[in-house]
Amino acid sequence: MNNSRLDTTTFIGIFLAFGAILGGQILEGGHVGSLIQLTAFVIVIGGTLGATLIQFSTPVFMLGMRLTKWVFFTPNIVLTEVIDQVVGWGNTARRGGLLSLEPLLEEMDDPFMRKGLQMLVDGAEPDKLREMMEVEMEAYDEHHRLAAKVWESAGGYSPTIGILGAVLGLIHVMENLSDPAKLGAGIAVAFVATVYGVGAANLFYLPFANKIRAVIGREMVKRAMVVEGLVAVANGENPRLIETRLRGFIA
Amino acid sequence: MNNSRLDTTTFIGIFLAFGAILGGQILEGGHVGSLIQLTAFVIVIGGTLGATLIQFSTPVFMLGMRLTKWVFFTPNIVLTEVIDQVVGWGNTARRGGLLSLEPLLEEMDDPFMRKGLQMLVDGAEPDKLREMMEVEMEAYDEHHRLAAKVWESAGGYSPTIGILGAVLGLIHVMENLSDPAKLGAGIAVAFVATVYGVGAANLFYLPFANKIRAVIGREMVKRAMVVEGLVAVANGENPRLIETRLRGFIA
Amino acid sequence: MNNSRLDTTTFIGIFLAFGAILGGQILEGGHVGSLIQLTAFVIVIGGTLGATLIQFSTPVFMLGMRLTKWVFFTPNIVLTEVIDQVVGWGNTARRGGLLSLEPLLEEMDDPFMRKGLQMLVDGAEPDKLREMMEVEMEAYDEHHRLAAKVWESAGGYSPTIGILGAVLGLIHVMENLSDPAKLGAGIAVAFVATVYGVGAANLFYLPFANKIRAVIGREMVKRAMVVEGLVAVANGENPRLIETRLRGFIA
Amino acid sequence: MNNSRLDTTTFIGIFLAFGAILGGQILEGGHVGSLIQLTAFVIVIGGTLGATLIQFSTPVFMLGMRLTKWVFFTPNIVLTEVIDQVVGWGNTARRGGLLSLEPLLEEMDDPFMRKGLQMLVDGAEPDKLREMMEVEMEAYDEHHRLAAKVWESAGGYSPTIGILGAVLGLIHVMENLSDPAKLGAGIAVAFVATVYGVGAANLFYLPFANKIRAVIGREMVKRAMVVEGLVAVANGENPRLIETRLRGFIA
Amino acid sequence: MNNSRLDTTTFIGIFLAFGAILGGQILEGGHVGSLIQLTAFVIVIGGTLGATLIQFSTPVFMLGMRLTKWVFFTPNIVLTEVIDQVVGWGNTARRGGLLSLEPLLEEMDDPFMRKGLQMLVDGAEPDKLREMMEVEMEAYDEHHRLAAKVWESAGGYSPTIGILGAVLGLIHVMENLSDPAKLGAGIAVAFVATVYGVGAANLFYLPFANKIRAVIGREMVKRAMVVEGLVAVANGENPRLIETRLRGFIA
Repeated sequence: MNNSRLDTTTFIGIFLAFGAILGGQILEGGHVGSLIQLTAFVIVIGGTLGATLIQFSTPVFMLGMRLTKWVFFTPNIVLTEVIDQVVGWGNTARRGGLLSLEPLLEEMDDPFMRKGLQMLVDGAEPDKLREMMEVEMEAYDEHHRLAAKVWESAGGYSPTIGILGAVLGLIHVMENLSDPAKLGAGIAVAFVATVYGVGAANLFYLPFANKIRAVIGREMVKRAMVVEGLVAVANGENPRLIETRLRGFIA
Repeated sequence: MNNSRLDTTTFIGIFLAFGAILGGQILEGGHVGSLIQLTAFVIVIGGTLGATLIQFSTPVFMLGMRLTKWVFFTPNIVLTEVIDQVVGWGNTARRGGLLSLEPLLEEMDDPFMRKGLQMLVDGAEPDKLREMMEVEMEAYDEHHRLAAKVWESAGGYSPTIGILGAVLGLIHVMENLSDPAKLGAGIAVAFVATVYGVGAANLFYLPFANKIRAVIGREMVKRAMVVEGLVAVANGENPRLIETRLRGFIA
Repeated sequence: MNNSRLDTTTFIGIFLAFGAILGGQILEGGHVGSLIQLTAFVIVIGGTLGATLIQFSTPVFMLGMRLTKWVFFTPNIVLTEVIDQVVGWGNTARRGGLLSLEPLLEEMDDPFMRKGLQMLVDGAEPDKLREMMEVEMEAYDEHHRLAAKVWESAGGYSPTIGILGAVLGLIHVMENLSDPAKLGAGIAVAFVATVYGVGAANLFYLPFANKIRAVIGREMVKRAMVVEGLVAVANGENPRLIETRLRGFIA
Repeated sequence: MNNSRLDTTTFIGIFLAFGAILGGQILEGGHVGSLIQLTAFVIVIGGTLGATLIQFSTPVFMLGMRLTKWVFFTPNIVLTEVIDQVVGWGNTARRGGLLSLEPLLEEMDDPFMRKGLQMLVDGAEPDKLREMMEVEMEAYDEHHRLAAKVWESAGGYSPTIGILGAVLGLIHVMENLSDPAKLGAGIAVAFVATVYGVGAANLFYLPFANKIRAVIGREMVKRAMVVEGLVAVANGENPRLIETRLRGFIA
Repeated sequence: MNNSRLDTTTFIGIFLAFGAILGGQILEGGHVGSLIQLTAFVIVIGGTLGATLIQFSTPVFMLGMRLTKWVFFTPNIVLTEVIDQVVGWGNTARRGGLLSLEPLLEEMDDPFMRKGLQMLVDGAEPDKLREMMEVEMEAYDEHHRLAAKVWESAGGYSPTIGILGAVLGLIHVMENLSDPAKLGAGIAVAFVATVYGVGAANLFYLPFANKIRAVIGREMVKRAMVVEGLVAVANGENPRLIETRLRGFIA
């Protein structure tokens, strides 16, 4: 169920963002090449990466990097399929008791659903079941939101480090004021650092963090539905009522 | 009840905002034409759209766009009519029991009220009724607030991308310092990007997001009143007391 | 009890703020007249008004405007008088029962206190009484805080629209670089828009919003005391104990 | 117990802050005198004071001013002494009953502890005792945090009013461009307003607000311990257990 | 268990951050020496230290300094070891009763775990045990987060004090406009203060604060697991169930 899907909106967005900057540059008669500056790149990207590495522990930083795949290949969380599945459990349990759910455990890919189903089969009390699944939900939420903060922090450091790069460039310009011919070009180089810092943060880092957070949010809705459904099945509720209740989670 | 109404305040506001900018430009003896710059437009609008598309999934982005109609045609949520309707249900239920509410289901346009009324007719327990309606309320609230964030995010990216456009323009100017005649005009072009970025965010994107959020807030008050009323009717409370209680929701 | 009182602090504050700006201008040997610019005024005030109108619905905007009177004439909320009144109700109820409070209804100006007293006289259960009064308190709080946001939003838009005005002015200046004599004066005009935008936000809009919010906060403390007192009277508590308890609300 | 103590850290901090600014100015070969500008002082300090006065009611503003003494003479809140005292009450109550605490009332300086002790002696129920003391705690917290906001608001207004002063100065400079000799000095004067606005906010107003808030936080911990202890004594708990429990409040 | 471990990510991050700035400076053909300015250092570091000292009390400031070691030597909090330990307690208690846990007290290094174990051995009621341990957890959390704010506040003051230093430098430059040869170099010196202020905040102070907070967060998860486990052991729960439950805390 959780297989991912190429997120065309992300690709259109990145194409548009790059196209707007480069297209604008060309429309104005400028050279695209004057936007490519190794010095600015080293300062802005290196400095941002450095600050982000200091802030996060290695495992959280690595998780943040791995979650980046969600920006391009969004997990395909189909909430209606969750309803079908949970209602199916309810029907099975009604007919053959909670133990009859055991064969379903093998074909279950999602570890959260499998753990819940296992507890259901083991005959856990509804209250204990809910409590334990909610502890796990919260741990998932906190851990993944922390990882999404890797991109958010990069988006926070990047513009100021871009300004840092610009100021470093301007210092260099000011020290060579005696050669006015180089003045303009020097300032131009300095400004490229600002473009890198502000652009990377606003066109990539911050949207990345927000898209990752949206996926986490959707996964949390799915998990809340699973917990609600498991408790209802454990309570032996009518599958039709379970369906009505779970539909309320989908706006 | 939820038919919409042309929001004259929005139109007066947009007229005022445009009038202030253009009027100011004319008063100062400037040409309105010098505020029209294709390059700046491409960078600022294209870049903002790109960043926003990366951040949101397609369905949320589309919902954000659709909700924009609320800025111009505000849904006409008349809270006193909700009171009349709920009190009417209370009176009907008092006379003929909850089942006598069934004929009202057909003429009910609002899906949230219809679902609640259906549960009432089906004889749902008051506690279950409240719980299920509140899950649905929360899902509506979260989903629509996320969509309102499309405009808020655009309002967050737009000014910085405007500054990006200005810096791109200044780089171009600096590379052509040898021709001082073009200096001023070049800087002027660069500044237009700032005007686009700051203006679009402050005169449109952010007010749009806030107006959409206000409509959601009012709809949530309506829904809270409906839930409160449904539970009271299910409890067989005195319709006059229901009216007093619901009036408390209207400040 | 809620009659208002001229707020001398506000007037001293406005006098000081204006005096500081104008006095500073005169001390530096500048002309006060150079701070008066129709163009800047049109752009900054018109643009801010436009953005604010787009954001708010007409009734909320109008309430925000009406609450502005609180900045100059603060409602005179004397919490000790509330204690005296509630303790008086307690004593009356002790001697003659809750019905003996009925004659007090006529002379009660405050609609919130009258509604609560009416419910007390009608013999509402303490729990119901508290619940209904708290719904009304929350509706009052949300509605008035939303109205206070009119000034807060104006304070948010104003500085950026001031910068917009400055940039518009600078564009005009840059297009006329050929006439250096006009350069300085042109830039001066452009800067006045910044002064208007930043000054209006920091010296008026934001302090207005905060003072209005403080009045709402004080009214909410009063209402919390009224509800606490009504419930205590309904429970037939000792008036001396009610007084001790209500005194705890006054820091 | 609540006698205050000269806060050497504050004095070292102020000495360092002033020393850094003045020392830096001297190191660079500048005159300290060029940092003293009556005009800038009038605009920045007067404007900030004006905005702050508009925002706050007179009693809150005065309380904010009075709390400033805490920045220099921090109240000496010794949490271990609170434990000793509360445990002492527990022992006294164990031996001679709650009434035997009455003689302690006279020598109690702290009004919050005296009120709680009085209620204990009067035989208030533990639940009522906790509820009433917590209402008072919350009122104290809200009231004093509002007063701490006087400095926080001043810290918010000051930098922007500093920029306002700089812009006013620059307007003056621009109008006198014809005399280039005065150009630099004029701009220097303008910049002093920025130094005043940013410096006052970051070196004084904001640290003041935060130190006041820290004192309030510590007082709230003390009060939470007092309430916890009073309730435990009212419940007749073992003084040793009370001590263990209260130690948990001290990190 | 809580022995620390050299945090290589931090060292790589600091190396990268310094390398990016210095490498960029060298790539651009600038002298690294022109980034070393005593004046700027005195103003920015001294001013930031001053503001931070005013804000915090001496013990909190000192704790903030001591926690800095966590940035370089992260405490090695292995959550799976906590599970092993707690499950071990459960097994021991099952076999020999709670008193059989007493010998474990001696070899317990972690004071929080020792205190909880002591209460368990003393036969504290599960509810009391949880309540007292949670009070201690909250005190730990608040106290240490306050200390982490020392670095966060430094990160807030540093950039503005950097700008202060730049403005002080520019004032000096403006007063010596008559000697254009010194103009550029003077401005360059002024800009170094910005580099120091922005760089120190973004590359060190803010990442430090965030890394310290992450360690506190992980310690709080460990403590929550310990409390959950202690209560389960006190309730005589099955050690296997305790293990399943505690695993839920690890995302």
